Amino acid sequence: MDDQHTEHAGPMDDDERAEFTAIVGERYALVDAVDIAPHLVERRGLYQGVTPLVLKPRTTAEVSRVLKLAHAKRRPVVPQGGNTGLVGGQIPFEQGNEIVLNLSRMDQVRAVDPVGNTMIAEAGVTLSRLQDEADRVERLFPLSLASEGTCQIGGNLATNAGGMQVLAYGNARHLCLGLEVVLADGRIWDGLRTLRKDNTGYDMRDLFIGSEGTIGVITAAALILAPRPAARATAFVGLNDLDQISRFFELVRSTSAGALTRFEILPRFGLELVLKHADDMRDPLEGPHPWYVIVEVSGAHDDGLAERQLMSVLERAAETAVVADATLAASQTQDDAFWAIRERLSEVQGLEGGSIKNDVAVPVADVPAFIRAATAKVAEVVPGSRPIPFGHFGDGNIHFNVSQPIDMDKDAFLARWDDVCGAVNEMVLGFGGTISAEHGIGRLKRHLLAEIKSPVEMEMMRAIKRTFDPLNILNPGKVV
Amino acid sequence: MDDQHTEHAGPMDDDERAEFTAIVGERYALVDAVDIAPHLVERRGLYQGVTPLVLKPRTTAEVSRVLKLAHAKRRPVVPQGGNTGLVGGQIPFEQGNEIVLNLSRMDQVRAVDPVGNTMIAEAGVTLSRLQDEADRVERLFPLSLASEGTCQIGGNLATNAGGMQVLAYGNARHLCLGLEVVLADGRIWDGLRTLRKDNTGYDMRDLFIGSEGTIGVITAAALILAPRPAARATAFVGLNDLDQISRFFELVRSTSAGALTRFEILPRFGLELVLKHADDMRDPLEGPHPWYVIVEVSGAHDDGLAERQLMSVLERAAETAVVADATLAASQTQDDAFWAIRERLSEVQGLEGGSIKNDVAVPVADVPAFIRAATAKVAEVVPGSRPIPFGHFGDGNIHFNVSQPIDMDKDAFLARWDDVCGAVNEMVLGFGGTISAEHGIGRLKRHLLAEIKSPVEMEMMRAIKRTFDPLNILNPGKVV
Repeated sequence: MDDQHTEHAGPMDDDERAEFTAIVGERYALVDAVDIAPHLVERRGLYQGVTPLVLKPRTTAEVSRVLKLAHAKRRPVVPQGGNTGLVGGQIPFEQGNEIVLNLSRMDQVRAVDPVGNTMIAEAGVTLSRLQDEADRVERLFPLSLASEGTCQIGGNLATNAGGMQVLAYGNARHLCLGLEVVLADGRIWDGLRTLRKDNTGYDMRDLFIGSEGTIGVITAAALILAPRPAARATAFVGLNDLDQISRFFELVRSTSAGALTRFEILPRFGLELVLKHADDMRDPLEGPHPWYVIVEVSGAHDDGLAERQLMSVLERAAETAVVADATLAASQTQDDAFWAIRERLSEVQGLEGGSIKNDVAVPVADVPAFIRAATAKVAEVVPGSRPIPFGHFGDGNIHFNVSQPIDMDKDAFLARWDDVCGAVNEMVLGFGGTISAEHGIGRLKRHLLAEIKSPVEMEMMRAIKRTFDPLNILNPGKVV
Repeated sequence: MDDQHTEHAGPMDDDERAEFTAIVGERYALVDAVDIAPHLVERRGLYQGVTPLVLKPRTTAEVSRVLKLAHAKRRPVVPQGGNTGLVGGQIPFEQGNEIVLNLSRMDQVRAVDPVGNTMIAEAGVTLSRLQDEADRVERLFPLSLASEGTCQIGGNLATNAGGMQVLAYGNARHLCLGLEVVLADGRIWDGLRTLRKDNTGYDMRDLFIGSEGTIGVITAAALILAPRPAARATAFVGLNDLDQISRFFELVRSTSAGALTRFEILPRFGLELVLKHADDMRDPLEGPHPWYVIVEVSGAHDDGLAERQLMSVLERAAETAVVADATLAASQTQDDAFWAIRERLSEVQGLEGGSIKNDVAVPVADVPAFIRAATAKVAEVVPGSRPIPFGHFGDGNIHFNVSQPIDMDKDAFLARWDDVCGAVNEMVLGFGGTISAEHGIGRLKRHLLAEIKSPVEMEMMRAIKRTFDPLNILNPGKVV
């Protein structure tokens, strides 16, 4: 609950509901408990919101009219896409006066241009559909997330989503050329440019990207397409320690240059959890190793170059004792199996009892030292807890998740969430890192923001919020 | 002159001058006409400013104190780097009440990290020095401009500089991870992060990048280093028409993927000017061709791959009649000679009489149609004028410069500046393009901004300006 809410409209009466309903039509103004339920919970189960109305507009003009009315009524609005966010940004608060503005019906791909390598899509288009649209014209839309079948590009941009291919292609921010945004008072900004270069005034686009629906509602985006790699080579690599990972990363990066597309790490304990909870999985390597890297090199052509590059890196790494063991995927099936291990990691943690999540980043060079320090610290805070630091080593972005001690009560462990995250965050900040690398701030980390940002930066962010949303009706109580 | 100036401090008295001087020391507070002269003109000779004082602070703290005092006095301040800007943003107005805040003495490279591939440099470090620093640790700082020996990274970021390698590495914005900025009232924002991913609140960094010193003074930046290519292959290619350029670009891009690092075009008339005015140049090809491309493919290793890739592209292009003739640089000397043609293009236009400059971009797919349309239009406006559309084809960024008719008076031709630019801009906007792709708005194009931006975007930009510089003391009358 947030004291900034006090000036907002309270409970919604029938007249106001009718006014909002008239904008999108009765069918798309949900009030029935069963209909609205999926919009009020998120998958980690941290938040359960309340709303008098879920609106599903079809057009930018409808979104504009909704916000114009909300502005007049001082009715707070929570923008929502595929509802896959992990920090609660897309869920209304419990007091029940916030409208949910769900963008799912804005699902048109407005244009695909394989010559200019751009496409324009509305906010509600799912990420996997964008990938398919790109594929259809032999291009790649490189954003890739575990939730890609459900998450929507509007939400991806509002949260500046990351994922496994950031190393090669950047995060959502880097894949966007222009935006269409409805402002808090309903004005529409048409910034849907498909230009590679445009130095005409302030960069408004990047201000909205990552602002988590607190200063505007993204309704459409101009996106970048990349050439589609014709070949991919993947290896599953066993290593003895964290410093070997650093050396191996440097070796792959310097050898394969722009061809390195993924470099993910997981500890032995992570692999063990996958093997234990997922029946169809097997250990790709003979013996156990403390750490694993799954590495992918891509090639523009199906000429075996990617495979040769990766093979040659692995040979050099083996010769110089930088890796302990490695296996190259010999088929697409094997390739899929390697990546399935990585993709199942989040799910199996839930099957192993309580799991405390951290989405942090430090400078790439400091990742090994950070993981060692945080592991030691967490062992002090909850003895017997089992860290699974995994993820995007090449970006310095580690999901430093911690599974509960084997014999501990799940709720008792989860009650230590703030202590464990506090310990990890302390280490992160010591390395000049960030407590939210890709998931955002939302509601989950909002209370931490003032601790990690300087007063000047907090003042700047609050000034932006006041400037763009003076009545504080856009996702109030989130981020700033 | 700008009506927003009216609330500013007028002529500077000795007391005020003494207060500012005390901050940086007498030696670095320039008042002598000879000392300040280089800071009041820019190389195109479009503007000649007047100032009572040029301040050259050495530290961020000094910049902060200068702005705190300026804020208290309502004294307008023009931030200035290497003074290579092409739109007058770094030059004070003629009324003579603006201080010039020159950042040249802030020239420390604070850190270079070849593992994390980052470096931190102060605003006054020249671009070529940053390239050298990167080279020293076997890395590449990929920003590259004709003015790199003189321009400074603070100015590069304030103007979001582009150049020839944007195609492969992005513009200044894409090479920056964090900033240190002094705000209009002297507060210091330390946003010098070296993280690859950080989703904690609004993206303040990108708001300052490209804002041309109107909402804050960049004093230092955390920058991205790239792997240094070990090999480069360059070809000089002759083509029959603009559509061939499109097909050739597509061929190179699809064949060489991430290895394509430069793709510049120039018309025959551009080459002729270089051959005419630069004694040491020769035509790399046997016969004349209407268009030329200089294309570069880079390789991570010195293993001949880049050369083989480019050779194979050229063979395929010749087989399918996509290019008319081509020659691959056989030595570094020849490589340099090819690029020298491109680099001399700007200079030789000045030797050919009056030259009207346009820095525009359209979607990449529309470049041929745009060049044809603008050429026809300009011929209507000034019959006999000679367009030289050249530049960064792969970004859609064309410098549509126009040389005067052979027998026309130079001043009479230059008096048509607005007509010629207006005609070109009309074509640009028809293709959804931008009237300033990389040079910015500054003073030169400020009057055009409201014509090309929607009222909503203008309102957003003005709101940003008011929020960050409520007294309008930072580079007033520039950009917004």
